[in-house]
Amino acid sequence: MSREITGFSNPLVKRIRSLRDKKHRKREGLFLAEGLRILTEAREGGVLPEMLFHAGHATDHPLAIELIREMEANGGDVIVTSADILSKISGKDNPQALVGVYRDRLTPIKQLDRDSADIWIVAQSLRDPGNLGTILRTGDAVGAGGVILIDDCVDPFSVEAVRASMGALFTQKIATARWGEFITWLRQGPGQLIGTSLKATHDYQEPRYQSPAFLLVGNESQGLPSAYEDQCDLLVKIPMLGKADSLNAAVATAVMAYELLNQKRNGRS
Amino acid sequence: MSREITGFSNPLVKRIRSLRDKKHRKREGLFLAEGLRILTEAREGGVLPEMLFHAGHATDHPLAIELIREMEANGGDVIVTSADILSKISGKDNPQALVGVYRDRLTPIKQLDRDSADIWIVAQSLRDPGNLGTILRTGDAVGAGGVILIDDCVDPFSVEAVRASMGALFTQKIATARWGEFITWLRQGPGQLIGTSLKATHDYQEPRYQSPAFLLVGNESQGLPSAYEDQCDLLVKIPMLGKADSLNAAVATAVMAYELLNQKRNGRS
Repeated sequence: MSREITGFSNPLVKRIRSLRDKKHRKREGLFLAEGLRILTEAREGGVLPEMLFHAGHATDHPLAIELIREMEANGGDVIVTSADILSKISGKDNPQALVGVYRDRLTPIKQLDRDSADIWIVAQSLRDPGNLGTILRTGDAVGAGGVILIDDCVDPFSVEAVRASMGALFTQKIATARWGEFITWLRQGPGQLIGTSLKATHDYQEPRYQSPAFLLVGNESQGLPSAYEDQCDLLVKIPMLGKADSLNAAVATAVMAYELLNQKRNGRS
Repeated sequence: MSREITGFSNPLVKRIRSLRDKKHRKREGLFLAEGLRILTEAREGGVLPEMLFHAGHATDHPLAIELIREMEANGGDVIVTSADILSKISGKDNPQALVGVYRDRLTPIKQLDRDSADIWIVAQSLRDPGNLGTILRTGDAVGAGGVILIDDCVDPFSVEAVRASMGALFTQKIATARWGEFITWLRQGPGQLIGTSLKATHDYQEPRYQSPAFLLVGNESQGLPSAYEDQCDLLVKIPMLGKADSLNAAVATAVMAYELLNQKRNGRS
């Protein structure tokens, strides 16, 4: 059953709009994802929104029609509203025609099945939502299991991170942990912890990486704390020929992740 | 000689602030770069700002002192101002302590020396300033010669692009061209034009790339127009194991660029 909301002061509109703030996302355990492409990725990954807001014309698209039909069959809350209210919810002048409200997707670290994938990404104090979303997207592409967020990372359920993930947020596991907790869990089973560091002497193409590999990426401006580097099984460096001494965090992660994938594909690891 | 400006309504403050808009940047031929790190990269690349704004305390840092000294020796305009005015200029609540005003750095495509580098990046209708800045930063890292911007790309001199480039904007050549103009120039000399495409049958690690290689990256949501793909010497695909059918544009560029660099390093091309 669809219902219609047209009033700006409707309490549900206010509540959903408040999900743009981390505080409210945390309290409600809900987050927003926008646009048919991301909502379809989610559905294909078996994840339906709890609520769906759409301007009436969205139902012109066959994928939107399928999504709404499936939600209705599962008792989901489908709300027809105006472009102005979608704009209010998403905070954008040109909102997407569909906004989904999803239950947050954190997995307790102890429930991660490390053997389910060859690559895991471990992000430490990452601050930029675009970088985190892009790393999730790359994780999906290389067949990673998911991303473990260490210390004070940006919220993976922020609108910007969700958008940059292009839906990978729904295919990648996401866990959060303090460093000590992560290391304790990691050392209870197989897993090679690999950091990139300016101090490293090994070129990143030199080692034969093992599975599961845990790729550790540090904060955008500080890099990894030395104490964390010391606990890595391998420290490697990506060659840089120019003036700059570092790559963008999402780029460095992708260059490393593709090296791991390529070694696997080429039978070198 | 340093001078001091403390008034918000000072015409120069207004003029410099207006450089946050593309229209004004274009008219003035000037752009803004913020922060000691980026300004130092520029200086090390031999580029000084025409004007420098700083809050007095910035001169505590030895690199800032050197920059100011060098500017003064070259007749540059060094302006001491307040944190509030820096905030007004940069549009940020916590502005950097230094803001430089630089002459724009476009190189006419006919003046590019294609033999000066093994890799060139060609970006077509790229829309996101963060992606463009990140691509410039990656270009610096792989020793690329520069970036050629095709059709309607985002302005490389926007504050966001400059920031994401982390100073690579000052080490990479930047040219703009319409597609036809670019192809005409390209075919007047050596150069392999390489596109990434979902339609490609070759894995990106299969070909032995030639120098100079021109890596063509398309618009974030549309990819490359078919007509442009048809003019590539090689179309390759980056493997993707997950749900998503594309990588972030800056990530795809980096994965390709490092493959080219690695072939060179490993003597395979």
